[in-house]
Amino acid sequence: VRSELFFPDLPGLLTLRCDLHTHTVFSDGNVWPTVRVEEAWRDGLDAIAISDHIEYLPHKTDVSTNRNRPYEIARPRAEALGVLLIRAAEITREEPPGHWNALFLTNCEALNVPDYHDALRIAHEQGAFIFWNHPGWKQPDGKSVWYKEQEEVLQKGWLHGLEIVNGPAYDPTVHQWCVDKGLTPMGNSDVHDPIAFDYGNSPADRRPITLVFAREQSVAGIREALFEGRTAVVCTNGVFGQERFLQPLFEGSVQILNPETTLRGKATYLVQVRNRGAVDLDLELAEQPDGVSAAGRVWVPSGKVVLLAIRGVSEELSGEREVTLPYRVRNFLVTPGQPLRADLRLRIQFLPVVK
Amino acid sequence: VRSELFFPDLPGLLTLRCDLHTHTVFSDGNVWPTVRVEEAWRDGLDAIAISDHIEYLPHKTDVSTNRNRPYEIARPRAEALGVLLIRAAEITREEPPGHWNALFLTNCEALNVPDYHDALRIAHEQGAFIFWNHPGWKQPDGKSVWYKEQEEVLQKGWLHGLEIVNGPAYDPTVHQWCVDKGLTPMGNSDVHDPIAFDYGNSPADRRPITLVFAREQSVAGIREALFEGRTAVVCTNGVFGQERFLQPLFEGSVQILNPETTLRGKATYLVQVRNRGAVDLDLELAEQPDGVSAAGRVWVPSGKVVLLAIRGVSEELSGEREVTLPYRVRNFLVTPGQPLRADLRLRIQFLPVVK
Amino acid sequence: VRSELFFPDLPGLLTLRCDLHTHTVFSDGNVWPTVRVEEAWRDGLDAIAISDHIEYLPHKTDVSTNRNRPYEIARPRAEALGVLLIRAAEITREEPPGHWNALFLTNCEALNVPDYHDALRIAHEQGAFIFWNHPGWKQPDGKSVWYKEQEEVLQKGWLHGLEIVNGPAYDPTVHQWCVDKGLTPMGNSDVHDPIAFDYGNSPADRRPITLVFAREQSVAGIREALFEGRTAVVCTNGVFGQERFLQPLFEGSVQILNPETTLRGKATYLVQVRNRGAVDLDLELAEQPDGVSAAGRVWVPSGKVVLLAIRGVSEELSGEREVTLPYRVRNFLVTPGQPLRADLRLRIQFLPVVK
Amino acid sequence: VRSELFFPDLPGLLTLRCDLHTHTVFSDGNVWPTVRVEEAWRDGLDAIAISDHIEYLPHKTDVSTNRNRPYEIARPRAEALGVLLIRAAEITREEPPGHWNALFLTNCEALNVPDYHDALRIAHEQGAFIFWNHPGWKQPDGKSVWYKEQEEVLQKGWLHGLEIVNGPAYDPTVHQWCVDKGLTPMGNSDVHDPIAFDYGNSPADRRPITLVFAREQSVAGIREALFEGRTAVVCTNGVFGQERFLQPLFEGSVQILNPETTLRGKATYLVQVRNRGAVDLDLELAEQPDGVSAAGRVWVPSGKVVLLAIRGVSEELSGEREVTLPYRVRNFLVTPGQPLRADLRLRIQFLPVVK
Repeated sequence: VRSELFFPDLPGLLTLRCDLHTHTVFSDGNVWPTVRVEEAWRDGLDAIAISDHIEYLPHKTDVSTNRNRPYEIARPRAEALGVLLIRAAEITREEPPGHWNALFLTNCEALNVPDYHDALRIAHEQGAFIFWNHPGWKQPDGKSVWYKEQEEVLQKGWLHGLEIVNGPAYDPTVHQWCVDKGLTPMGNSDVHDPIAFDYGNSPADRRPITLVFAREQSVAGIREALFEGRTAVVCTNGVFGQERFLQPLFEGSVQILNPETTLRGKATYLVQVRNRGAVDLDLELAEQPDGVSAAGRVWVPSGKVVLLAIRGVSEELSGEREVTLPYRVRNFLVTPGQPLRADLRLRIQFLPVVK
Repeated sequence: VRSELFFPDLPGLLTLRCDLHTHTVFSDGNVWPTVRVEEAWRDGLDAIAISDHIEYLPHKTDVSTNRNRPYEIARPRAEALGVLLIRAAEITREEPPGHWNALFLTNCEALNVPDYHDALRIAHEQGAFIFWNHPGWKQPDGKSVWYKEQEEVLQKGWLHGLEIVNGPAYDPTVHQWCVDKGLTPMGNSDVHDPIAFDYGNSPADRRPITLVFAREQSVAGIREALFEGRTAVVCTNGVFGQERFLQPLFEGSVQILNPETTLRGKATYLVQVRNRGAVDLDLELAEQPDGVSAAGRVWVPSGKVVLLAIRGVSEELSGEREVTLPYRVRNFLVTPGQPLRADLRLRIQFLPVVK
Repeated sequence: VRSELFFPDLPGLLTLRCDLHTHTVFSDGNVWPTVRVEEAWRDGLDAIAISDHIEYLPHKTDVSTNRNRPYEIARPRAEALGVLLIRAAEITREEPPGHWNALFLTNCEALNVPDYHDALRIAHEQGAFIFWNHPGWKQPDGKSVWYKEQEEVLQKGWLHGLEIVNGPAYDPTVHQWCVDKGLTPMGNSDVHDPIAFDYGNSPADRRPITLVFAREQSVAGIREALFEGRTAVVCTNGVFGQERFLQPLFEGSVQILNPETTLRGKATYLVQVRNRGAVDLDLELAEQPDGVSAAGRVWVPSGKVVLLAIRGVSEELSGEREVTLPYRVRNFLVTPGQPLRADLRLRIQFLPVVK
Repeated sequence: VRSELFFPDLPGLLTLRCDLHTHTVFSDGNVWPTVRVEEAWRDGLDAIAISDHIEYLPHKTDVSTNRNRPYEIARPRAEALGVLLIRAAEITREEPPGHWNALFLTNCEALNVPDYHDALRIAHEQGAFIFWNHPGWKQPDGKSVWYKEQEEVLQKGWLHGLEIVNGPAYDPTVHQWCVDKGLTPMGNSDVHDPIAFDYGNSPADRRPITLVFAREQSVAGIREALFEGRTAVVCTNGVFGQERFLQPLFEGSVQILNPETTLRGKATYLVQVRNRGAVDLDLELAEQPDGVSAAGRVWVPSGKVVLLAIRGVSEELSGEREVTLPYRVRNFLVTPGQPLRADLRLRIQFLPVVK
């Protein structure tokens, strides 16, 4: 059974739900490669990468060390289920430089070389999209540091993205690096166990997702979008990414069911706000609108309709006008700490109180 | 918070979700009238009738006996929430003739007369749609009997519908009477306590619903549809009604996500079947289709996608053809015991096995 | 169906689960009095007070104003279900002095007098336990203020408790007042609608509860305990009260399933911690214990067992010793901001690493 | 997080929850052996057998064929978590003779021989407990047939148990064979995928369990109990086994909270029935008791308390007497079709109606 995970498409772009960092028994994971495909299908994803470690193979006594096998084994199941499968690998070194995922490889085995520069270069030569995984991992106090090793790889043009979310954790430092350096934000599960050990299907316990805004539903479409930086990241109930993506994601998820009304004097009107999207929305009024006062805080759960109360502020006001309710979406961050600004629009016929 | 309850609209008709038999503290119920409106909004309904008993008023020591008060009290809340509220009452006599709901009354008090013929006549004169409630209630072995009293009311033209579902119970005898006598099938909760004592929000424990197929979303629209017999009844996960309604309900709920494929020889193809509707679907193959063998039984939960496996039956077959998978929907009954026939259509390019 | 809500009894005392502030249609609530009893039974409570407003009766056009009726109507159902029912009322004035609940009344009607001093005095003369409700309500910024009116009532000996929790909100200012003034902390739902509109059955969305530590399961037992200050308050997943109550609540809820082990060198041992109680436990290590290092943070959900990893810190240590793991229970507050200190005890046979 | 699965211990015997038929990547399963242990711990089990196929190794291109490896790999995790792990294997042949599980092996590799008689004999010589798996599998219409091959193995003394439950399906034919032939009934998941693909944690979707009534919590304890036939089988919400086991399982799960009452005339009394056990109970009155009439059908969900209404039948009856309510537990079957008889006992002081 597949649970659907609704994120609206953007104008001219498909919104693909991806987890681009997962493991199997072929490195230190605990499931067969087909399980990752099946889990992705059940969880409503469009695409995954299986990215077993190149250098860390704790099951090698019992399992083949051929680094292309996870992809080869999983591909028929991916095709049968319509899940896009990306050939990938994780270059795994001590910090710094740490761990790097290379996507869209043609031969994972070729990355098994002593020097990590060589591994990254070979991946790059295979046309890989490369991102640095969980920068804060094993750092003092979990604080991410931009080492000279990263700078060097970036300068060489080999680094294209950063994991701002790995597993359950969002890293605002890394998010800011994406903004500053123009790198593609990524959010992935890095799952080793069966996904159900770590995640469920509700907004509160869902696996992280990289939303990829692609021109077509294909591996090539995802690749083009990643290189062009067209992603947003979902971490449980938070969404992180550029305003140009978060704005239409919000607009495509939210619907006012009763946007037109009459309002006499200081009467109250209950606006019905529907959230079709897969994440709950946490709205906070940015400033009081003109002509009405509106609820200061509104929580709109995924798939539900809630009431947002507005109230007239004058007994004399009359005439029809468009009223904009200026909200901030507290759980949609366009940069660290900066929520998306989102307006809800009503058309109100104001009626004066007849004395 | 309102949970949405998706049933597709029909060609030219809105599908309104209604519970047309409920009680409040003004007879033997245990909630204030506004609570019924609020519950309906939360449960995703479009309309309700509050139908307190005319004759049975166990709270009369403490609560007003004015039989119009429930409607008057509830109406402002109904308007604020956009729930259609129908003025109604339950004429409550010993069996036979038993209990009758009269909808669209203009004055409930007028029905408080000694003789039930008079009560029904007055309701009829007010333009009421009248239905007989829970015919099997208090009958020996719960078996519904069509008494001469019912026949007489029917002959007078005062009887328009029958509760084939009351609370959690579906009554096939009464369903058959609707078919035979051309009466409108109704399904209602008859709730007395807070709705959450008796029902939840999943297909398995949801309150019964009368689906009304109306030309407009208004009390008048519901009235016209009821008199014209345009209803279907939902009872937990069962749907009951005429084929002309159940067919488009099914068609509007089900979607094949990958209807086109190639199929080589005896290969297997996984058809992805999506159920957008609010009830699970229980599909059973009516007969084996041409050119492929298909899964004999498929359960498609509400809001989910499932896999339906088909398999080629010949190694020689070639060419493109439309393949119809002839299923029965076991939980959509067009008459008692007769499930809806529903075809799923694929377009398959058959490829012979190359030897 | 009744869901059980496990809180352990204390040495010599029964732990009774109470909601001592609820409303019905007899004031501004929306359910019949019997519903409050039925809800309490379903929610696993032992006792409730129905405390309709004395002065605020918005349904009086339709409902009796006899302030003793809610108790009289609900009592038979309470007896049938074994729920203890306390006759109560809410004295309802502008702030200050605000709203006061009087429990264990003998005649609610007698409190219907113009001056609130008289109302409180009459309640006191009936032997009532009186507490001030939701002190922060309608105050600027919701900040609770101890007015001279409260001081006066306290000085007269009429004030015995304070709501540190009302509905979903915990008020640390009021909690501190209880500590400083020796008043009994109370936590109640103040529910007006059907309880299911506002609360569910999980630790995250459960109604507030006043835990009363009583010598016997009776109304008299509750009364004696309240006057003696023997309560703790549960608000969703937080527990508030004196250490003498929270300590045994914790001890009676938590069990180490495998407290004895051998530990060689720096090996890891997985301690299985079981939480029988109705609230999740949020444990944080206060300081590193002797001889082992232990997990810094452990979440133990209600009704579950979790693993707490400890690790030897020396390769030379040998011999059997009792090891105490000094945790703080972050969601058990003995005063505002001060979590309960709780030790977990193990018996470890340390084994040196053989070289 | 471990969910507890309460089944009461029996007099002198521990009730151990076991799944004795599971697969890993070492045959045709899809998880690493440690996952089976971790899943068992999470699901509240005490013991599992990993029973990979001896002869069917579809992953052999990539995974070691050493048939002892699953046990060796899983054992350290089993010890750390306190899950008992049984070395096992599945002898896998065409039907007949079909598939057989051998538990408590010392060397799985030794069973890899051409003739299945030899494989069974070698298992027997290793001291194995051998059971025939899913007898109805791949049989015409799924109907189990007792082939001469089975009879032969039974006569040799090599066959000790039968799977009356495999995966979600209970087979009454096989249950009857256990009764007739004195074989031990087994119920197992035969899981290949991550357990969460197929099962959840509620009574309705839980994995099958073999309850083993053991003298000690050890592999040896389980072995002794299996050879002595001391098991019962749980399949979702059904429990199957001998009356000597089901009787105390029921008695240890059910508790009457208010067994003593007075009953005047034809008054109604609400008996509170608590079910501490992990399966719901479906009670049906076998015959009307003396002195009272009782509810004909009662559903007692796991972990809940429900009300069972009894009513006096005489206005004259007086005096104290023990009243037995003779119920059948419809979902506890001692043989196919025969529910357990279980009495609920009350002590009632009958009071005559004073005229």
